[in-house]
Amino acid sequence: ADVKKIAVIAGDGIGPEVVAEAIKVMKKTEELFGYRFEFEHGLFGGIAIDEKGTPLPQETLDICKNSDAVLLGAVGGPKWDNNPKELRPETGLLGIRKALGLFSNIRPANVFDCLKDASTLKPEVLEGTDLIVVRELTGGIYFGEKFRREGAQGQEAVDTCVYNVTEVERIVRQAFEIAQTRRKKLASVDKANVLETSRLWREVVNRIAPEYPDVELEHVLVDNCAMQLLRRPSSFDVIVTENMFGDILSDEAAMLTGSIGMLSSASLGEGAFGLYEPVHGSAPDIAGQGISNPIATILSVALMYRLTFGYHDAAEAIERAVKEVLDAGHRTGDIAVDKSKAIGTVAMGDLIVNAI
Amino acid sequence: ADVKKIAVIAGDGIGPEVVAEAIKVMKKTEELFGYRFEFEHGLFGGIAIDEKGTPLPQETLDICKNSDAVLLGAVGGPKWDNNPKELRPETGLLGIRKALGLFSNIRPANVFDCLKDASTLKPEVLEGTDLIVVRELTGGIYFGEKFRREGAQGQEAVDTCVYNVTEVERIVRQAFEIAQTRRKKLASVDKANVLETSRLWREVVNRIAPEYPDVELEHVLVDNCAMQLLRRPSSFDVIVTENMFGDILSDEAAMLTGSIGMLSSASLGEGAFGLYEPVHGSAPDIAGQGISNPIATILSVALMYRLTFGYHDAAEAIERAVKEVLDAGHRTGDIAVDKSKAIGTVAMGDLIVNAI
Ligand SMILES: CC(C)[C@H](C(=O)O)[C@@H](O)C(=O)O
Ligand SMILES: CC(C)[C@H](C(=O)O)[C@@H](O)C(=O)O
Repeated sequence: ADVKKIAVIAGDGIGPEVVAEAIKVMKKTEELFGYRFEFEHGLFGGIAIDEKGTPLPQETLDICKNSDAVLLGAVGGPKWDNNPKELRPETGLLGIRKALGLFSNIRPANVFDCLKDASTLKPEVLEGTDLIVVRELTGGIYFGEKFRREGAQGQEAVDTCVYNVTEVERIVRQAFEIAQTRRKKLASVDKANVLETSRLWREVVNRIAPEYPDVELEHVLVDNCAMQLLRRPSSFDVIVTENMFGDILSDEAAMLTGSIGMLSSASLGEGAFGLYEPVHGSAPDIAGQGISNPIATILSVALMYRLTFGYHDAAEAIERAVKEVLDAGHRTGDIAVDKSKAIGTVAMGDLIVNAI
Repeated sequence: ADVKKIAVIAGDGIGPEVVAEAIKVMKKTEELFGYRFEFEHGLFGGIAIDEKGTPLPQETLDICKNSDAVLLGAVGGPKWDNNPKELRPETGLLGIRKALGLFSNIRPANVFDCLKDASTLKPEVLEGTDLIVVRELTGGIYFGEKFRREGAQGQEAVDTCVYNVTEVERIVRQAFEIAQTRRKKLASVDKANVLETSRLWREVVNRIAPEYPDVELEHVLVDNCAMQLLRRPSSFDVIVTENMFGDILSDEAAMLTGSIGMLSSASLGEGAFGLYEPVHGSAPDIAGQGISNPIATILSVALMYRLTFGYHDAAEAIERAVKEVLDAGHRTGDIAVDKSKAIGTVAMGDLIVNAI
């Protein structure tokens, strides 16, 4: 079979542990489905700062550019938190998104039946929650000009939020298309009553909406959306929004499912290429203990199979295996009710591999 | 007694109904406590657009400037939603904040015992939640330069987020001072890993923190804060943040209490002067039916008594009266479990007036 190149950037904290389990899963699907993967590892984030003096070494970027998909663990940790900007893991994250043209971040937030008690929301409110946040990832206030200057009132800092029509159009189209494959509802989130970028955003959404007549569109102000996610989470299907709002709302949505250790994400550009990573962070407090939950990373592989490779059978096999293992009562510490019965990272990975 | 001038801007939707009840309460405290108020009414928001062609007529601004405190109902509605910017109610809201120098928005989010089932959060998670969001209100991306321009990729829109040291310092000091009167915990929320304005914000917070050694300070990234509000709402005491983040987080915090019809807010400047309003909106769908809940506006009067006039006894009397009426089982439609037993706006106001 066709060999697919996978760039593996395990990163910091629990990154390497969870990525190792995801790779085991990929190898199992090589055997079972006849796929062929070639893995190339790259340094990224804190570990790259330590070993190469930069969070995103050119070599790592080249490995990614040379690959069909990227599997990312997690980056960051207190060790680098007070570094100057160029020497911070997050700077690598922003850099890789921009360099690879990953303008779209897809964040499913769905509730795992067997975990719905883990949410702080009432189960009856959560019932049926299954939404995707589509976040613009390479524009807005994240990438606009930033500087300091002396003003009349002392030093001032400036951030610039910029969006052009093309940037808005491509992300909004993608969101409409995703909605068409789902429950056909799109909520476009902005702050059009205050921001010029939001007014442009809304104009573009309204202009292209008629091309997707089967999708029901609503405009929601960002402050209202933060409320409605709490009040009626199950009423959302696809939410599309700009970079900063997406950062906040996708984390809020993830947390309300109670399944943060289980959620995967994809960052996509124009073609099939994508970067896949768990939603959770590097969890430095539990790194190296072998107790982290590898499921979000394993499910990120399933997302990769679907979105980049069109390996739908294997994606489904992985998702089914995860469900089976959870239904059988196996839990890592983060999702265990009875912590004394929790199993480790490798044991969870093995169980899922065997269930595929 | 000293006559206090109150500017009353009832606004749109349910604004006039709820403000009328709040004024009844104020008059009752005139009788009981010997206070003297002089009320002057001004047009504002949608109704001012209709009658004067601008959401914030100069005359209304003069009434406010001439007063000791402003009581605001609510503004906005679908009727004006598609107006050009200068003819939108929100523009009036932003204008009045700036014109009156109201740089601080104080938003308590606490849970009313008898209403905790109204929240979508589990009661055990909500238990003990009692926090205040202190939002910067006259700076940041709300008031920075905004424009369109032609770029290489078609039209683009630009918003500018600016903060100077003085603006950050005054709001952060106020938040520290509020924390000192409460549980002595302050969470400063920013996005210092991405934004230059947030880095300035954090520098200022760290610089002045040693002046408040009794207050325990934590820095929380805005995305993480959106999550932690859901996970551990009761662990927050005072949250201080910039304008846009505060808009989102204060609404999220309000919604999680389940008591949105009950929450009051204050917008303050340098002195004792303040503008007081309910957190809820103008609710055009139920306006004019006499079924809206006046409690948030009545509690805004209590906040005015405390923060602007130092009328602590009367403030407490109002708060006690509200609790008594609720404990006796009286409910407006928005908070009633059995909607058929719900009482109207005026009946609720009367009950509270009688209970003072
Ligand atoms: C680490 C940070 C720069 C990043 C972001 O804000 O985009 C993170 O929060 C995320 O959502 O991936
Ligand atoms: C109406 C709007 C401009 C306003 C804001 O964003 O400040 C509102 O959401 C608020 O919080 O008072």
